[in-house]
Amino acid sequence: MVRGRDLTNELIGTINFTEHFWLLVTGALPSAAQRRILDATLVAIAEHGLVPSVVASRMTLAAAPESLQGAVAAGLLGCGSVVLGSSEAAGRLFAEIAARVGGGRGVEPAATEVIGEYHLGSRAIPGYGHPLHKGFDPRARRLFQVAAEVGSSGLHAEIAHAVEKLLPQLVGKPLAINVSGAIPAVLLDAGYPLLALKGVPMLARTAGLIGHLLEEQQRPIGFVMSHAAAQAIDYDGETPSGFRSSESA
Amino acid sequence: MVRGRDLTNELIGTINFTEHFWLLVTGALPSAAQRRILDATLVAIAEHGLVPSVVASRMTLAAAPESLQGAVAAGLLGCGSVVLGSSEAAGRLFAEIAARVGGGRGVEPAATEVIGEYHLGSRAIPGYGHPLHKGFDPRARRLFQVAAEVGSSGLHAEIAHAVEKLLPQLVGKPLAINVSGAIPAVLLDAGYPLLALKGVPMLARTAGLIGHLLEEQQRPIGFVMSHAAAQAIDYDGETPSGFRSSESA
Amino acid sequence: MVRGRDLTNELIGTINFTEHFWLLVTGALPSAAQRRILDATLVAIAEHGLVPSVVASRMTLAAAPESLQGAVAAGLLGCGSVVLGSSEAAGRLFAEIAARVGGGRGVEPAATEVIGEYHLGSRAIPGYGHPLHKGFDPRARRLFQVAAEVGSSGLHAEIAHAVEKLLPQLVGKPLAINVSGAIPAVLLDAGYPLLALKGVPMLARTAGLIGHLLEEQQRPIGFVMSHAAAQAIDYDGETPSGFRSSESA
Amino acid sequence: MVRGRDLTNELIGTINFTEHFWLLVTGALPSAAQRRILDATLVAIAEHGLVPSVVASRMTLAAAPESLQGAVAAGLLGCGSVVLGSSEAAGRLFAEIAARVGGGRGVEPAATEVIGEYHLGSRAIPGYGHPLHKGFDPRARRLFQVAAEVGSSGLHAEIAHAVEKLLPQLVGKPLAINVSGAIPAVLLDAGYPLLALKGVPMLARTAGLIGHLLEEQQRPIGFVMSHAAAQAIDYDGETPSGFRSSESA
Repeated sequence: MVRGRDLTNELIGTINFTEHFWLLVTGALPSAAQRRILDATLVAIAEHGLVPSVVASRMTLAAAPESLQGAVAAGLLGCGSVVLGSSEAAGRLFAEIAARVGGGRGVEPAATEVIGEYHLGSRAIPGYGHPLHKGFDPRARRLFQVAAEVGSSGLHAEIAHAVEKLLPQLVGKPLAINVSGAIPAVLLDAGYPLLALKGVPMLARTAGLIGHLLEEQQRPIGFVMSHAAAQAIDYDGETPSGFRSSESA
Repeated sequence: MVRGRDLTNELIGTINFTEHFWLLVTGALPSAAQRRILDATLVAIAEHGLVPSVVASRMTLAAAPESLQGAVAAGLLGCGSVVLGSSEAAGRLFAEIAARVGGGRGVEPAATEVIGEYHLGSRAIPGYGHPLHKGFDPRARRLFQVAAEVGSSGLHAEIAHAVEKLLPQLVGKPLAINVSGAIPAVLLDAGYPLLALKGVPMLARTAGLIGHLLEEQQRPIGFVMSHAAAQAIDYDGETPSGFRSSESA
Repeated sequence: MVRGRDLTNELIGTINFTEHFWLLVTGALPSAAQRRILDATLVAIAEHGLVPSVVASRMTLAAAPESLQGAVAAGLLGCGSVVLGSSEAAGRLFAEIAARVGGGRGVEPAATEVIGEYHLGSRAIPGYGHPLHKGFDPRARRLFQVAAEVGSSGLHAEIAHAVEKLLPQLVGKPLAINVSGAIPAVLLDAGYPLLALKGVPMLARTAGLIGHLLEEQQRPIGFVMSHAAAQAIDYDGETPSGFRSSESA
Repeated sequence: MVRGRDLTNELIGTINFTEHFWLLVTGALPSAAQRRILDATLVAIAEHGLVPSVVASRMTLAAAPESLQGAVAAGLLGCGSVVLGSSEAAGRLFAEIAARVGGGRGVEPAATEVIGEYHLGSRAIPGYGHPLHKGFDPRARRLFQVAAEVGSSGLHAEIAHAVEKLLPQLVGKPLAINVSGAIPAVLLDAGYPLLALKGVPMLARTAGLIGHLLEEQQRPIGFVMSHAAAQAIDYDGETPSGFRSSESA
């Protein structure tokens, strides 16, 4: 029995993994719209090339090939506040604004108020801006599109766009919604729980890491990358005293 | 671009997470049969109640609530050779037998030979027997059923059943195929790569852990379980000298 | 070369591990007083019986015996804000008060002010109170004693005691300094850096975990504890729907 | 109470951390000779510059600064069979030879026999050879010197040197004992338990990681190294399809 359902007769071979994940998190099976939105967010961030957590994971497998689970764990440990946590942080921002809207305020005044409080506390606005995608983040736009297609756009998407519109006057520069802003907006609108938001990028990245670690077994680059990483520091002249880039013990 | 495909225009909103995972691991999109088999295996083992890795993960979140990623990592670190590794080990067993069949032998002689070598080396036969399910493991039976339904049954399933039939005479007792034996059999028949087999239970358990960790935030049991664990040892009179079950630092 | 010193000729066989750790963290060798205080704090918290992080670590080794490093890592992941982080949090409290004293205020007014701010923000005062040791924590008292013996007591110890004296009137109940309050007080007085404070309980617990994991190899209790943990939840009638306490996959 | 001793009155302020670690692992306090050998081995391998596990750990802190424990754990997960496990593997080699010497054989015939078996099984001889130190590893030589100074040299050191002498004729090239060979030789001679051997490099590296992670907070290089690592792969033309070196989510 899983969440009150017969695993063998009701679930295996009947529902797909995305539906099962939704069931495990919420206790109920998703609607087709909910499933499609969750799928879209998971697909959007599963793979991102040689990002820090992937580099760390591949180096770990190179050093400890007996433990695939250790390499996956090392990769997930880099899914923190700076790198993947912005999805959850943006979710908290939208939920805070939504709570005030629920209390009777308009979306724009509520957003202005909460952004003002972030500003006062010198907190960055999570989910906006991007080093590469100038103008807009195509993945974010696509996620909002999918949500609209399945008829699931709601208050959180509205808030996300209201914040984007307010940012130039409130923080002084235009910052487009990025994928970490779009993910919580469409998931919260779909009824996915706020406290499990971080689970979505983590599950997605686990899939990505497994792909990378298969490749690391077949075409190892972990030590090459580690050497290059250490050399880069040597080159910059910032090597701390006593550092050497070789490993022997 | 992910594996040569345009992430935004070809993948997000178009394929589901299971298809994306298959793409990340193999470099190609799965057929409908492959997708359905992968889904069935992921659903079969995502959630298993308060198993050791889940207990460890929930305790870790209780102690370090600032790091969801740390709690997931702690849970995955318990996906090792004893607990979840049997899927991969069974996959290696079937692949070894399949290789000899490929070399021209019959399934039964090849299986007899390889099992004999395991026996000589005092190695357990992974993927067979179960402490709870006497007779057969219903999840294993269901997985083979799904594979048959989608027309994907092949050599590895045949080998898995041949081994089951041979075990009574070769090791002296009947041992039914369990879910850890069925998973690699149906995945290998579907063309999923042997070296990434362990990724399937790991991805599935990540989903299960995220469900548990949401619940741990809402209904904490981590410290209760830790206390009970320590008490159980006190009770059994096996407390190592100097052990105390309280935590203060 | 390590921190500008010749590893083979100056360090191996000449300095001990505690001195080396101080060197790695600060870049200089410790005085005899500094070394003795660091030793005292490391000894005070290395071993604490079957606390959650130890339970999690032993369960992880039981499930994945091929990876000792995974079991140690799982144990360290439970050294978080709730369980071992209070040393660092108390260090930040003392450092904040010390900064204001440095700005010309008396210890008592500065402490009153900072505690008031914690109170306003509904933040707990870290480093005080203990579920077991009523009146005082003998390990804390001993650490202050050691610091006094080596002539290293300073402003942070003074602040720690001033806070203890102020707490009854400021928070309404007497709360004695515990070991997590004493550790940062004596270390900061000895010149150990604030940003590396958490490293002391972590290094200490690594030593404790290695002792436990040797024992787990010799007298396994990981699965017994896991079973008891799951049973405790069954017993309490709080089992989430669909949970089972057995593991088969 | 820790291992039958009163923590506050007998241990804190009385023994040092190395003695406490020995106590936690063996249940007894070390002699002066045992303590000095354990110190020498811990000092010899605590710090090794920007090795893969350190790079992985610093990247992890950069991505998840809220969790120092996660970064330490990620670093330790790279202490595996390839990188730091050779100490333990060499210890098993020496113990196997010692067991046969205990059975009445001479050191040289026993070593020849066991090395022959390793050779037959295509297993590398752990603890010998070094990419940098041609001729001999100065740290290994120093460790044997320390052991001799304290009168602790015994059968395992004798075996380690006998193996070194036999290697040219048995494997066709001279390979000097390295630090991973010297560590288990001197520790086993000192009475340190074989099953806890891996704990020594792990404890040592924890100390090294804490030093690196303090530095990472003060002079961050984690993302610089990650970028260089990804660039190195781009440069080599081996970038898997779809890889990009930037991170945005």
